Amino acid sequence: MDGGASNASELDSVLVVGAGLLGTSIGLALASVGVGVHLVDSEPKHLHAAVERGAGRVWNGADRVDLAVVAVPPRITAELLERFQRLDIARTYTHVASVQAHVQAEVEARKLNLSCIVGGHPMAGAALSGPAAASADLFTGRPWCVCPLPESTAEAVADVWALALAVGGAPVSLSAAEHDRAVALVSHLPQIVASGLAGLLTDPVALALAGPGLVDTTRIAGSDPDLWTDVLTANAVLIEPLVGRLIAALQELRSALADPPSPARDAAIHGYLSLGRAGRGLVPVKRGSGSAAFEVVQVRLDDRPGELARLLSQASDLRVNVEDVRVGHLEGRPHGVVSLSLTPGQARHLAASLAATGWTVER
Amino acid sequence: MDGGASNASELDSVLVVGAGLLGTSIGLALASVGVGVHLVDSEPKHLHAAVERGAGRVWNGADRVDLAVVAVPPRITAELLERFQRLDIARTYTHVASVQAHVQAEVEARKLNLSCIVGGHPMAGAALSGPAAASADLFTGRPWCVCPLPESTAEAVADVWALALAVGGAPVSLSAAEHDRAVALVSHLPQIVASGLAGLLTDPVALALAGPGLVDTTRIAGSDPDLWTDVLTANAVLIEPLVGRLIAALQELRSALADPPSPARDAAIHGYLSLGRAGRGLVPVKRGSGSAAFEVVQVRLDDRPGELARLLSQASDLRVNVEDVRVGHLEGRPHGVVSLSLTPGQARHLAASLAATGWTVER
Repeated sequence: MDGGASNASELDSVLVVGAGLLGTSIGLALASVGVGVHLVDSEPKHLHAAVERGAGRVWNGADRVDLAVVAVPPRITAELLERFQRLDIARTYTHVASVQAHVQAEVEARKLNLSCIVGGHPMAGAALSGPAAASADLFTGRPWCVCPLPESTAEAVADVWALALAVGGAPVSLSAAEHDRAVALVSHLPQIVASGLAGLLTDPVALALAGPGLVDTTRIAGSDPDLWTDVLTANAVLIEPLVGRLIAALQELRSALADPPSPARDAAIHGYLSLGRAGRGLVPVKRGSGSAAFEVVQVRLDDRPGELARLLSQASDLRVNVEDVRVGHLEGRPHGVVSLSLTPGQARHLAASLAATGWTVER
Repeated sequence: MDGGASNASELDSVLVVGAGLLGTSIGLALASVGVGVHLVDSEPKHLHAAVERGAGRVWNGADRVDLAVVAVPPRITAELLERFQRLDIARTYTHVASVQAHVQAEVEARKLNLSCIVGGHPMAGAALSGPAAASADLFTGRPWCVCPLPESTAEAVADVWALALAVGGAPVSLSAAEHDRAVALVSHLPQIVASGLAGLLTDPVALALAGPGLVDTTRIAGSDPDLWTDVLTANAVLIEPLVGRLIAALQELRSALADPPSPARDAAIHGYLSLGRAGRGLVPVKRGSGSAAFEVVQVRLDDRPGELARLLSQASDLRVNVEDVRVGHLEGRPHGVVSLSLTPGQARHLAASLAATGWTVER
């Protein structure tokens, strides 16, 4: 991982291959900063939807561009890189595959011109796929991994770096191996853990008692098994030892749970939990959901139309900028607790003003 | 699990022992429906805070009540049940411990009068502890486990059932063993999974690429290791085989990941992910976070004071009742996408009206 490209690059025109969530979002973001975007997709419905949303115009099959971005599923990424490079329509070619070494090996096997190819992977996604779920700010502030091949020219790397910056992302230069090792830990292992836990949930008596902890821990278990089978198989070599480390930790805990009560048994369990708490402390959390950078004011809210608007209007009148809002009610509750996240120094003022005007401020 | 108590019960007065999050919330909820609440806590600061918040009045050490609720950490629950039963100040005694059989065995060993004791466990909590985090609607719509002892009288069971209803909860009658088996799966195992995953997070290069999946999957790993050591040791006998089942599933997956590519290897990985997706489908999710009972409209929101209030005012003017709000921006984003959850049938109307007045409706 280094500071990245030294050459500045200008992107005037980009061809986006694949008008799904990522491709359409790239098109929307580039179009919003004046880059000419051409779009191509084998699915006319997707292409139409992306153009309708303003993500670019349909590629005429001939116009040359500065950069071609192949934004298709990983298993056909190398094939499409080859197809478009053979057309010789771009200065530089990149992609958005979630596993890099795999694509790089395939590209090398196809004997393409490797000097103008650079791997890429934006660390952004959404619960839904397709052009309708795309957003111009999907990448804003998110890391964009730039993974040069050994043969990539500095000019090609600079083009992909410029793409990441143009869509508002934070480019990070890593080798394919570094990238794949990192995502094995922070993306692929969490998927395995969530799926493994959710796979044990069959008891309706138990599920009736489930709360927010189970809901959050299993959220990503709802992901598409087809897509994730591709990802896990493509990165299997790096994921397998991590699963091994997790199993070893669970086996130690299991053995402590099976031990008769003793201070050593309690210390082993406490150590397991404390290590987890320390690791959690290193996870970069969303704004407003527990970040130390924000103060939180909790206000009770009746479930009537307009209550939340009235609350936020009052905050606005007080010149308090609410950074995030969480409505914390669970199923069946007639009203909830709204958590307002504020930049520091405003909470006391807001809480006092709200309490004085009849709101129930919870803390 | 059965339909519960047949006798109706009237609660006029309740003694709450322990003015923490749960005890103070019980006091607030009971006081709001006119039940006389007496409070006692060995920590004067907590007692003062609970009384200030309106959760009840300080117990004078003599007044008799219909029901005494021991709301203290599990490891001292049996001791306090004994202390207050020896004073003979209530018709019925209950508690709120997160593991039941353990407390029940301790109570039996202390040779108390078991006929007037009934276990209880409200399935509710909050990120913070203490009386300041308490809320009168903490239990509204949430399951409240009522766990009679074999010796409990019908009258005693009816008193605890009445408590659960009085605070807005949904009482569920289970044996201590049924309860402990259920929470091992839906509460204790998720904690173990989240802690185990988070315990492997030490690589700063990898953590810089982390996204919402890792954030959600590890959220509860931030829980208090002291409290959770107590919970896991108290329920160790039932948790241990579940950890064993999880390890077995992970070992099968690990072995598939180590296999050379083949259709059988892919099928094993796909099967693991599909089982997880099916289990996730059974998890009762929060209102507004993916529940099929709500429609979602996503609107782009600039990060300026008053924007969210303006949006919600407009929804309110259209007589659309917004059930939940999520502001979806990640760290560093200048603006985000607000997800508004609506009762079905209103989304099209709202989306069209918002788009017509200059909002960017994302889908």
